[in-house]
Amino acid sequence: MVKKKRPLILLSNDDGVNARGLHTLIEIIKPYGDIVVVAPEKGESGKSHAITLNMPVRVRKISESENVTIYSCSGTPVDSVKLAINKLLPRKPDFLVSGINHGSNASISVIYSGTMGAAIEGCLNGIPSIGFSVLDHSENADFSIAKAYAGSIFQNVMENDLPVGTCLNVNFPVIPLNKVKGVRVCRQTRGVWKEEYERRVDPHKGEYFWLTGDFHNFEPDAKDTDEWALANNYIAVVPIHVDLTSYEGIKKLRDWTYECKI
Amino acid sequence: MVKKKRPLILLSNDDGVNARGLHTLIEIIKPYGDIVVVAPEKGESGKSHAITLNMPVRVRKISESENVTIYSCSGTPVDSVKLAINKLLPRKPDFLVSGINHGSNASISVIYSGTMGAAIEGCLNGIPSIGFSVLDHSENADFSIAKAYAGSIFQNVMENDLPVGTCLNVNFPVIPLNKVKGVRVCRQTRGVWKEEYERRVDPHKGEYFWLTGDFHNFEPDAKDTDEWALANNYIAVVPIHVDLTSYEGIKKLRDWTYECKI
Repeated sequence: MVKKKRPLILLSNDDGVNARGLHTLIEIIKPYGDIVVVAPEKGESGKSHAITLNMPVRVRKISESENVTIYSCSGTPVDSVKLAINKLLPRKPDFLVSGINHGSNASISVIYSGTMGAAIEGCLNGIPSIGFSVLDHSENADFSIAKAYAGSIFQNVMENDLPVGTCLNVNFPVIPLNKVKGVRVCRQTRGVWKEEYERRVDPHKGEYFWLTGDFHNFEPDAKDTDEWALANNYIAVVPIHVDLTSYEGIKKLRDWTYECKI
Repeated sequence: MVKKKRPLILLSNDDGVNARGLHTLIEIIKPYGDIVVVAPEKGESGKSHAITLNMPVRVRKISESENVTIYSCSGTPVDSVKLAINKLLPRKPDFLVSGINHGSNASISVIYSGTMGAAIEGCLNGIPSIGFSVLDHSENADFSIAKAYAGSIFQNVMENDLPVGTCLNVNFPVIPLNKVKGVRVCRQTRGVWKEEYERRVDPHKGEYFWLTGDFHNFEPDAKDTDEWALANNYIAVVPIHVDLTSYEGIKKLRDWTYECKI
């Protein structure tokens, strides 16, 4: 009888290698396989799918125990995943899990999120990938619901195939565990962040701006969206793909005519 | 008779405020309206949809002439667009044009691209937006084809409405102008960048890695893709949207069952 190889599971995040959300994730996922963490050495929130091109990237092994090895990377979440796959891991990982992010990545936040950048990079490389987030931005976010459900969601990904080119964006509400109504598969809510830059003046009279903002939901009543699910005590699971083509747009644009102006 | 207001057109890019591609774009677009440029002060290639959260952002007015005002921004392309809309412009711009990027943003490069990050940010804010790129990464890229066709593509966007939530990813081949077969509306090619990190050792014996890589086209024979169009002497126009939901994935995931493990 051939002993089945334990799965190799790559973990990353965007809050950095020391974030509580990442260490909670390690505890949740380590029963399922051998864990290698490659995560940014510092917070990289809002880094989206950014890669580091004009600087080199450095890696440091932080710790190694029986089935958990942890590296930090000087780059972005996507750099971390690329380096893991190409330089640090003995083979292509069987799964990638990113998070647990401190703060929501529902609706349009998915495109700003470094946590989801890492998951999408895994997906692009053919690795079944999940990004987990809780709707609490604080360092001391409550991960009770994630602890209760993330393992089961991961097991689903292990046992069932994700559709090709698809990864999961999973957001947990912040409510008492016994109020959770279940897991709801939904679509990305249409919405936008409306910014209000806060202007300040430094001691040398130079002005600078801090980014702040509020999320505007364009469809608060649509019950098939992730924002609705979260507001109604569900865990929201959105399957995400990386084909940005607007197929409706293709039909419309075919009627346009173009001329060479030289 | 009321004189029709000249359009207000926001320009940005990811190669930085001094890039030739941006100054070529200014020349192409300025006949159509009043131009305000807000672009990163230095190269920000590969910054995707990244925003700056843990640092403030600074802005500097570089120059102001009759209908072209140029600002630099210390942040990313998306920061530049957010600051323009929220702090620098007298009103919401009528159009946003990003580029001209030195290098291809076809296929999956669209998700790494800061040029397209800026265009997508415009689109999210309800502004008809285009990103232009040429398939030549060098500082001295040849913009002849862009000069001949970008104005006509922009005019189409001015005169016809883009579908809601859609922007354009336009890539120009690098061939002699008289070989161009026309403009082709296409979909994003499925493909991936395969990385080969180059390992080096610094004078203090610390190792570091430079990101390099090759693009792998998963569907080289598909004639409806942007890579095929470019390889066959067409200008490739891909309508891009920001709903990452995999609707096929939703159907499949609804069969999964989840359990609370506490």
